[in-house]
Amino acid sequence: MGNCQDSCKNFWCGPKNTNIRVSLPAVCFVWQIAMIILFGIFVRYDIEADGYWPEYMKSHNITSNIENDFYYRYPSFQDVHVMIFVGFGFLMTFLKRYSFGAVGFNFLIAAFGIQWALLMQGWFHSLDPVTSTIKIGVENLINADFCVASCLIAFGACLGKTSPVQLMVMTLFGVTLYAVEEYIIYDLLHARDAGGSMIIHTFGAYYGLTISWILYRPKLHQSKRLNGSVYHSDVFAMIGTLFLWMFWPSFNSATANHGDGQHRAAINTYLSLAASVLTAFAISSLSAKKGKLDMVHIQNATLAGGVAMGTAGEFMVTPYGSLIVGFCSGLLSAFGYLVLSPFLENRLKIQDTCGVHNLHAMPGLLGGIVGAITAATASVPIYGPEGLTSIFELVGTTRTAGTQGGYQAAGIAVALAFGIIGGAIVGVILRLPIWGDAADDNCFDDEVYWELPEDEESIPPILEYKDHMDTKNPDVSESNFSVEQC
Amino acid sequence: MGNCQDSCKNFWCGPKNTNIRVSLPAVCFVWQIAMIILFGIFVRYDIEADGYWPEYMKSHNITSNIENDFYYRYPSFQDVHVMIFVGFGFLMTFLKRYSFGAVGFNFLIAAFGIQWALLMQGWFHSLDPVTSTIKIGVENLINADFCVASCLIAFGACLGKTSPVQLMVMTLFGVTLYAVEEYIIYDLLHARDAGGSMIIHTFGAYYGLTISWILYRPKLHQSKRLNGSVYHSDVFAMIGTLFLWMFWPSFNSATANHGDGQHRAAINTYLSLAASVLTAFAISSLSAKKGKLDMVHIQNATLAGGVAMGTAGEFMVTPYGSLIVGFCSGLLSAFGYLVLSPFLENRLKIQDTCGVHNLHAMPGLLGGIVGAITAATASVPIYGPEGLTSIFELVGTTRTAGTQGGYQAAGIAVALAFGIIGGAIVGVILRLPIWGDAADDNCFDDEVYWELPEDEESIPPILEYKDHMDTKNPDVSESNFSVEQC
Amino acid sequence: MGNCQDSCKNFWCGPKNTNIRVSLPAVCFVWQIAMIILFGIFVRYDIEADGYWPEYMKSHNITSNIENDFYYRYPSFQDVHVMIFVGFGFLMTFLKRYSFGAVGFNFLIAAFGIQWALLMQGWFHSLDPVTSTIKIGVENLINADFCVASCLIAFGACLGKTSPVQLMVMTLFGVTLYAVEEYIIYDLLHARDAGGSMIIHTFGAYYGLTISWILYRPKLHQSKRLNGSVYHSDVFAMIGTLFLWMFWPSFNSATANHGDGQHRAAINTYLSLAASVLTAFAISSLSAKKGKLDMVHIQNATLAGGVAMGTAGEFMVTPYGSLIVGFCSGLLSAFGYLVLSPFLENRLKIQDTCGVHNLHAMPGLLGGIVGAITAATASVPIYGPEGLTSIFELVGTTRTAGTQGGYQAAGIAVALAFGIIGGAIVGVILRLPIWGDAADDNCFDDEVYWELPEDEESIPPILEYKDHMDTKNPDVSESNFSVEQC
Repeated sequence: MGNCQDSCKNFWCGPKNTNIRVSLPAVCFVWQIAMIILFGIFVRYDIEADGYWPEYMKSHNITSNIENDFYYRYPSFQDVHVMIFVGFGFLMTFLKRYSFGAVGFNFLIAAFGIQWALLMQGWFHSLDPVTSTIKIGVENLINADFCVASCLIAFGACLGKTSPVQLMVMTLFGVTLYAVEEYIIYDLLHARDAGGSMIIHTFGAYYGLTISWILYRPKLHQSKRLNGSVYHSDVFAMIGTLFLWMFWPSFNSATANHGDGQHRAAINTYLSLAASVLTAFAISSLSAKKGKLDMVHIQNATLAGGVAMGTAGEFMVTPYGSLIVGFCSGLLSAFGYLVLSPFLENRLKIQDTCGVHNLHAMPGLLGGIVGAITAATASVPIYGPEGLTSIFELVGTTRTAGTQGGYQAAGIAVALAFGIIGGAIVGVILRLPIWGDAADDNCFDDEVYWELPEDEESIPPILEYKDHMDTKNPDVSESNFSVEQC
Repeated sequence: MGNCQDSCKNFWCGPKNTNIRVSLPAVCFVWQIAMIILFGIFVRYDIEADGYWPEYMKSHNITSNIENDFYYRYPSFQDVHVMIFVGFGFLMTFLKRYSFGAVGFNFLIAAFGIQWALLMQGWFHSLDPVTSTIKIGVENLINADFCVASCLIAFGACLGKTSPVQLMVMTLFGVTLYAVEEYIIYDLLHARDAGGSMIIHTFGAYYGLTISWILYRPKLHQSKRLNGSVYHSDVFAMIGTLFLWMFWPSFNSATANHGDGQHRAAINTYLSLAASVLTAFAISSLSAKKGKLDMVHIQNATLAGGVAMGTAGEFMVTPYGSLIVGFCSGLLSAFGYLVLSPFLENRLKIQDTCGVHNLHAMPGLLGGIVGAITAATASVPIYGPEGLTSIFELVGTTRTAGTQGGYQAAGIAVALAFGIIGGAIVGVILRLPIWGDAADDNCFDDEVYWELPEDEESIPPILEYKDHMDTKNPDVSESNFSVEQC
Repeated sequence: MGNCQDSCKNFWCGPKNTNIRVSLPAVCFVWQIAMIILFGIFVRYDIEADGYWPEYMKSHNITSNIENDFYYRYPSFQDVHVMIFVGFGFLMTFLKRYSFGAVGFNFLIAAFGIQWALLMQGWFHSLDPVTSTIKIGVENLINADFCVASCLIAFGACLGKTSPVQLMVMTLFGVTLYAVEEYIIYDLLHARDAGGSMIIHTFGAYYGLTISWILYRPKLHQSKRLNGSVYHSDVFAMIGTLFLWMFWPSFNSATANHGDGQHRAAINTYLSLAASVLTAFAISSLSAKKGKLDMVHIQNATLAGGVAMGTAGEFMVTPYGSLIVGFCSGLLSAFGYLVLSPFLENRLKIQDTCGVHNLHAMPGLLGGIVGAITAATASVPIYGPEGLTSIFELVGTTRTAGTQGGYQAAGIAVALAFGIIGGAIVGVILRLPIWGDAADDNCFDDEVYWELPEDEESIPPILEYKDHMDTKNPDVSESNFSVEQC
């Protein structure tokens, strides 16, 4: 019994081993080969990407190649793709010594995630009943990017505190949960959420926050010196911020209805984002002693308008309605960074590196609520007879607008549930001490998983940063082991 | 009398207070709420973004959603948007300690400016006479971005020397002046300027230069140590340069006529830009003792071909004509950086941080002149009968080509007048000591308006930068007050 | 005889003079004027960019401006353009002190190269037999970018070791060789290579490697301290990596057949790239003692899937086939960086700064082979009757699929031959000591060709980098001369 207890304790509370030389390659190779096998069994080209497209055109009276879905959707796809890889990746480079991990792990888990998402979402949405194969076209690529976005949001909550193997596991489950959640919300509840305020942002944020809560690190303050930015890492992060901000209209319109739906979603998102910039700057200045702005707010809270306009972007919220949504979400988000993040960390033990609670969770909930209200007040005079049913297909037949609003709200609940429950389960799995994560005093440091270039600017003057120099002591930092955690 | 003089002197010449904790939030909140109210009164969706689009399609025999203007213009819009936010924003990050202000204030004033521009330009161009509302679609978004570009050019002249509140005021008036100028040039003079050599670049540059002249800082040399770049800030600036250079064909073609107009404007701009790269490199090397290149030239003068092709981009200037324009504008611009900027500063008291005189003013004038000459020589054999009137709608009916050339030249005069007179008025307003601008010895420093991260690379070795260290003395830098200016 | 030998020795082995104050401006001015003259003689607008387009529409029953090729191709063009200028340019900024040269010289030679390519490729492909003029439209711009890409790949092999004048000469010949090679492969062999695995990557890589071999520098180790990255230069390089990675589907689909061809090429490339990310990460971790990742692999080997999918992207390789190609190319490329590059340098005397052998040469060959195999196994059941001939126009008439496969393989041989033989000739020309290249101990240093900002972070603490400080001795570094080379 004593031995059992001891070995238990050693298993759970032993020193951390960050050597991923076996686990990361194994995960990458095995999962990539699995993807190849599954794609071999299931995935084929949609007819619009198939050699038989010319025959299909003839038999369906399509006169011009311009009708191929590629020309409708590829430009939107590229904008979304830039948001996923450059937007999210560089937004997270603000950490002074975790830029490699931020942009590199974002790259890795997104590249894996889009493959797994094509399968998961394909099984739900693009399965040809005759051949039992998944037919993929550019719309699948867009939806896969959307799915992966939720995992990248979760990554943001855990940034700097997880190993890349944990991130891969988190993505594997995250994509699966997303695909099920998306099916429930779109196909069972018949709720609309073209820009994913609920499906992507609410789910992704609570998924990541719950995992972060399960993986709470009591001594994370020992890594405090690295949990922040330096001047140029903040400038790198602005690359991410700006690409997200500029392309968010594409994100929110990419899967909206052709024609006025996409057009309106782009305009609404553009206006909402513009307003959230002004309120983010305002709160940032107001909250500082001498009115000085804080880059954290400018990098993040300015984006809240895009999150909050995800659900209602394609609805007839009116241009000034979009400005109001942006105004409120910018306020909410900046307030979150100022007040809620410290509260979450100190009282609720949720360590949220990127503040996804303030940028994705709260604005995502706001977006879902705005969507519910706007849906509930939809009517033929506002949308036109065809416009109303093209967005809310059941309204007017089996549902009233009010009921649709109720289903929209139910969608928020589903997204929350999947995020929290899914996050709890995955969090427990990730707590197993087998994934190569670092000790509490060794977080936010690229040196754990990357060969770092010999770099004079990373070695600070010895007088100013004595304690920093101590932790750079080769005997400590080079080792993959560190002190007991429990 | 003495007291009056004293209080006058104290008002105008007292120490500068850079605490914007009240003024910036006030401006942001009040103006954003004003935008919401004005949008509520005036702004609605254009029919192409409205729920009634399907009905409109039926009644107007539009058979496919692909005819929605969104699909024609959205890709151009995104390219222009990237130029405004990333292109201009990052081009100005060359300053070693003003990258936050460059990219951050660019972000703020553009986000406000596009809202105000939608209103101002909407009142002039998109007002529905029946409902007295402004109908907005993606073309309005493009034009709003164009309008804001002129304010960002003006920002470049003042970079590092103004407070964000001054910049907001400058943008408020700049957008207003632009909208009136645009109306005069397009609708009264019937001149063409699709890429804005006159309307955007000439106006914006002289607006900013005049403001900078009014706000002349006699002791600016005290901030000299920060009025320059460091190695990596020059690399950040190249991000801006390249995105501007690559997307300029989209900028100059975005509002050209569909079909050959847009196609030709893109080709002409592309060629002109290629040539200005070669001449910019040539002059840069030729002017240096050992032939060493200067990043200032490469970041800026290489773009002159795009500015100079703004007016004539859609005209039949011929491909080699575009190369000649680019050749000349690159020369002119590089020459400006080498010779004219010092002259402007030392003799004319115009402190032009980004050298907008060399990149926007002179090439903008050149572009207007090229446009005037090309218009004056337009004829049916060159353009084709339909081509001629589709660009120069009055030529052949109420005007000759020669007259059109005269009106193009008049457009240059209008742009100049608005820039200089408008800049003088606004400059005087901005001279009021109420906007929170910094003292002459405290310019080009993010530390004035931003919480800066603790950053070892910003604290130089004490031996090399002793005077820098002095100004980093917390008693001096932390204070919002500094010595008398007058 | 003795005097002759002495002057010979002085000519070839005298001290290096890096003063390019005459040669670079001369080359830029003379070649730009030559471009203007040649464009004046030869280049005109294609009808789709000409004022007579409306007349052409009428006479050819084209009902809508949307049929103008501009709308089909401009979005692809912009993506390719970003890859050329930002992708390649920033990928090469990884060198700690050669970021200016990387991004700046990339800018210069691309701006010149696209002009010369428009002429060279125009003479082969777009010459109007009646007027003997080259008609250019947006498709010519895309092909010019493709052509220039091969020269930028060659630049990567020589990065840091050549003067900008040498690079201009290398580009002049590279574009010429490419145009001839392209003509042979496309028009004589009738091989397909939409994404350029053979035409661009194989040719460009071997061209650059051969030049680098001819220009072998025996004492290059003296510049070793600068032949590497620092922390933030690696982050800058990730900007390049990501823009290349994201837009590669556009690159490989830009010149594929309209409709399913472009759609399929984008999907295949996307999948191949996703797989190469996973295998690149896997090998990188597996090969390091503690499983630590190496940025060199992440920046480069992750892109191999795009190169290897260049030829076969538009073929019916199937989605899982694309994953397999990506899987293998990522492995191959990472293995190249780990094992082959040192071998190439130490045994074969090929100094390959960017490792283009691992990213472009080997994956390019792989891509050509995959193309040959897929072409050889093409058949009507797979492609459909119209699909087969739309890609392989001669198959079924004058050739079998097997023969087509043979011609594809012949294309690889042609690309190799042009690269190696062309590179040898150009390498000998570049060996002339007249181009202003630096001495072996003065490579990888921007200070040779650029005015560098005074920059505290480039002056390392004197204790750590004593030998670096020695080379920063103004007497040595400021001089354009350095020790004998032979």
